[in-house]
Amino acid sequence: MKNKILLTGDRPTGPLHIGHYAGSIKNRIEMQKEFETFIMVADAQAITDNYDNVAKIRENVYEVVADYLACGIDPAQANIFVQSMIPELPELTQYLLNLVSINRIGHNPTVKAESRQKGYEESVPAGFYLYPIFQVADIIAFDADVVPVGRDQAPMLELARDVAGKFNAQYGDSILVEPEALFPEMVINLPGIDGNKMSKSLGNAIYLKDSREVIAKKMKKMKSDPTRASISDPGDPDKAIAFTYLDIFDKDVEGVAQLKKEYRAGGLGDGVIKQRALEVVDAFIAPIRKRREEIIADTALIEKVLAAGTAAAREKSHKTLKRCKEAMGLNYDFLSLVTS
Amino acid sequence: MKNKILLTGDRPTGPLHIGHYAGSIKNRIEMQKEFETFIMVADAQAITDNYDNVAKIRENVYEVVADYLACGIDPAQANIFVQSMIPELPELTQYLLNLVSINRIGHNPTVKAESRQKGYEESVPAGFYLYPIFQVADIIAFDADVVPVGRDQAPMLELARDVAGKFNAQYGDSILVEPEALFPEMVINLPGIDGNKMSKSLGNAIYLKDSREVIAKKMKKMKSDPTRASISDPGDPDKAIAFTYLDIFDKDVEGVAQLKKEYRAGGLGDGVIKQRALEVVDAFIAPIRKRREEIIADTALIEKVLAAGTAAAREKSHKTLKRCKEAMGLNYDFLSLVTS
Repeated sequence: MKNKILLTGDRPTGPLHIGHYAGSIKNRIEMQKEFETFIMVADAQAITDNYDNVAKIRENVYEVVADYLACGIDPAQANIFVQSMIPELPELTQYLLNLVSINRIGHNPTVKAESRQKGYEESVPAGFYLYPIFQVADIIAFDADVVPVGRDQAPMLELARDVAGKFNAQYGDSILVEPEALFPEMVINLPGIDGNKMSKSLGNAIYLKDSREVIAKKMKKMKSDPTRASISDPGDPDKAIAFTYLDIFDKDVEGVAQLKKEYRAGGLGDGVIKQRALEVVDAFIAPIRKRREEIIADTALIEKVLAAGTAAAREKSHKTLKRCKEAMGLNYDFLSLVTS
Repeated sequence: MKNKILLTGDRPTGPLHIGHYAGSIKNRIEMQKEFETFIMVADAQAITDNYDNVAKIRENVYEVVADYLACGIDPAQANIFVQSMIPELPELTQYLLNLVSINRIGHNPTVKAESRQKGYEESVPAGFYLYPIFQVADIIAFDADVVPVGRDQAPMLELARDVAGKFNAQYGDSILVEPEALFPEMVINLPGIDGNKMSKSLGNAIYLKDSREVIAKKMKKMKSDPTRASISDPGDPDKAIAFTYLDIFDKDVEGVAQLKKEYRAGGLGDGVIKQRALEVVDAFIAPIRKRREEIIADTALIEKVLAAGTAAAREKSHKTLKRCKEAMGLNYDFLSLVTS
């Protein structure tokens, strides 16, 4: 018996990487057992900064679903759905927009940073500027009690709580659930091969679909201790990204400690560490990759999962929207006569 | 055979007044014969600055429809519908938001003036700030070729043309109609009893539902030439609002000219002019008022009209939205499997 609802999701801008796995998917596989789970493939949000390349978003919807299923998201436990197929979300947004100032929406530090990064400057597309309030509607529409997020997304959850609270104060107690941020304890921020945060856009990611050959090539480019001139010099394992990977993926903890010791002393080549990182990362990815290959070839399976998840998501969000409109008084008597 | 589509509408913040009649309803009664007509009761837009008094908006929906029907809007010719019952409108807005900058939306001079008037200053509610782009979606959703507007609304139509043009450039030729502003030639800007623009919020309006007694009281308060100290002094008819009403409503053009002559010469009391204005305005309103009384008592009629209009509006806007989503590529194969 699941008493609480959880909403989470991803933007389908590309397939998922091992950073996604470590940072959220692993956690979701646990949480789906405990919470009534809705996982949103956020195509409409992804379009806000990809309106000139919707094909990319469209193509990656099925890729992301294949990643989910291959990792162990269980469609019997979690409703996987496509955001743009839920018209209740923009309709609810329309009413939430009345309860927050335009400036407050723009004060989200993550959106500001992303805007700068994209060079939008004075000409931020309205859809992108507003995506935090659309996110708030996503959360509220599913009566989500919890949303697992990183610390940087805390302001968005604060906005969701504020808006839900204002709605309740204005239109009736407990109409909307005031959601809470869940900061998962076990989450690991896996760096990309260049040492920065792993990210599709930075080109430093290892994907769950990558073949051993592709992983091997990426490992070769992996950042080592840049202060070390030759193999015989002492090195700092904290500056060699391959060691970070060993810390996470290598079950032989003592072996890794021994390698670090040798690295510090000098004489241990980075190629050895990277080869070992390749072995443990590929051993982790291999079964996911195998399942993923089967799933991505089975379009009917993916479509069945999305159809069921989307139907469940529509049903849930439709109930919330109906409750909101009734609370506002937008339940006209002539409605029963409308046939279309 | 009507080849072109017209969209128009009103915010249901109160019953309609004779300024509405002279400024737009009269024109619509002609245009409904020529154009496929959609008339929107814009409750969702009215809520953007009445979110704390939705009951007022809700109650006035039926009042406005009664006014329409009493004046001669013909539901066999024109689809009268309620905005909040068309979920396609906010859904379409969501995609249009990606094609315009947040600053451009805020640059609408009418919205800026209204914002100042309402004292929003730095804390403009997002729904109110954004209503021009929601209006654009209203227009675009119905493939409206023309929108009859006053000169002050020209920037909104320009925004609609820009956004439709950008959508077509991005997603495919001729997906959306680029609407044109129609500045009706015969429109009369009828002043309120204080000489300012007739407006619900200024309390200077004569309503289509006003009884003869109510009209008489309002006529007594009507502004006269303020420079005239006594009846024997010469007066300026252009400064006496009652004369403006006679110019519009009195069919005895020569009689009015004679009265103006006497007023200029001095000796003609304002009470005489106001009494005559009362006669002609009441003669104009009386048949509308009578029909209106019958209609407002016939809730079933109003609901039948709204149900039919809303069904037609949903069908039309749904087609447009479907065309838009297909053009964008948001037509997933799993859709046929979604049952809800």
